Amino acid sequence: MVEETTDIGVAQRFLEDLAVGMSDRSSRAVAENDIERFAEVSGDHNPVHMDEEFAAQTQFGSRIAHGMLTVSFISAALANRLPGPGCVYLNQSLSFRAPVRIGDTVTVELVITNIRAIRHRVTLSTVARVGETIVVDGEAVAFVPSRA
Amino acid sequence: MVEETTDIGVAQRFLEDLAVGMSDRSSRAVAENDIERFAEVSGDHNPVHMDEEFAAQTQFGSRIAHGMLTVSFISAALANRLPGPGCVYLNQSLSFRAPVRIGDTVTVELVITNIRAIRHRVTLSTVARVGETIVVDGEAVAFVPSRA
Repeated sequence: MVEETTDIGVAQRFLEDLAVGMSDRSSRAVAENDIERFAEVSGDHNPVHMDEEFAAQTQFGSRIAHGMLTVSFISAALANRLPGPGCVYLNQSLSFRAPVRIGDTVTVELVITNIRAIRHRVTLSTVARVGETIVVDGEAVAFVPSRA
Repeated sequence: MVEETTDIGVAQRFLEDLAVGMSDRSSRAVAENDIERFAEVSGDHNPVHMDEEFAAQTQFGSRIAHGMLTVSFISAALANRLPGPGCVYLNQSLSFRAPVRIGDTVTVELVITNIRAIRHRVTLSTVARVGETIVVDGEAVAFVPSRA
């Protein structure tokens, strides 16, 4: 577990600013309203997300957030924080490991694991947790421009 | 290219209802309002999505949708259509291949490529296109319950 948090802000990041091992951690609380907005924008109104009575009878026991809502937080952390503005998202792998519920706080941790400078490719591990529980993990690849 | 479209509706789908080669196709138009809502829910307000003047000066030439907005349509197609209600999303790989712009219609095509009945795992190819251009592709794995 990486204990460092970098707060990168909004200035554009270049390849020359990055190094393997750099990390970032950010958190977002999930409100009922977030699930409702995600249902509207995605078109996924399944009752396991929207209907407490229905969800209580499923394996989950209560309403759960859409998995892709958590992924949208990973995507925003990449875009806003590490690598940050100017990067272009190329690839993402995802494993959905545990549900996220209303009121949970999702913490996204990004760590740069590889940089291929010639191709401008930066690979990051992407892990979302609620408390100590990993809810989504995977790996991202982004294009990051050079300052030159 | 698969020409068949299945409209599965909302009834729960079981493993016994599925076969390799089954496919589904669905479409969504992307409005400016969708990008604004996705920015709010994800927290990604980068100007390449939000600011036409800024975006005009980038490699993209105009505002583009968040990649994960397109992915949210893939996720909704899995949840709503194939495998459909009752499935549990386990894994997704994603490659972002081309931008999506305001006014584009995104067509999501899902094809079942493998079923591991003992483990209840269904693998699908997941491709999103605008016209003939692939914008996002990848592979999904879902758990689908048995009727038994």
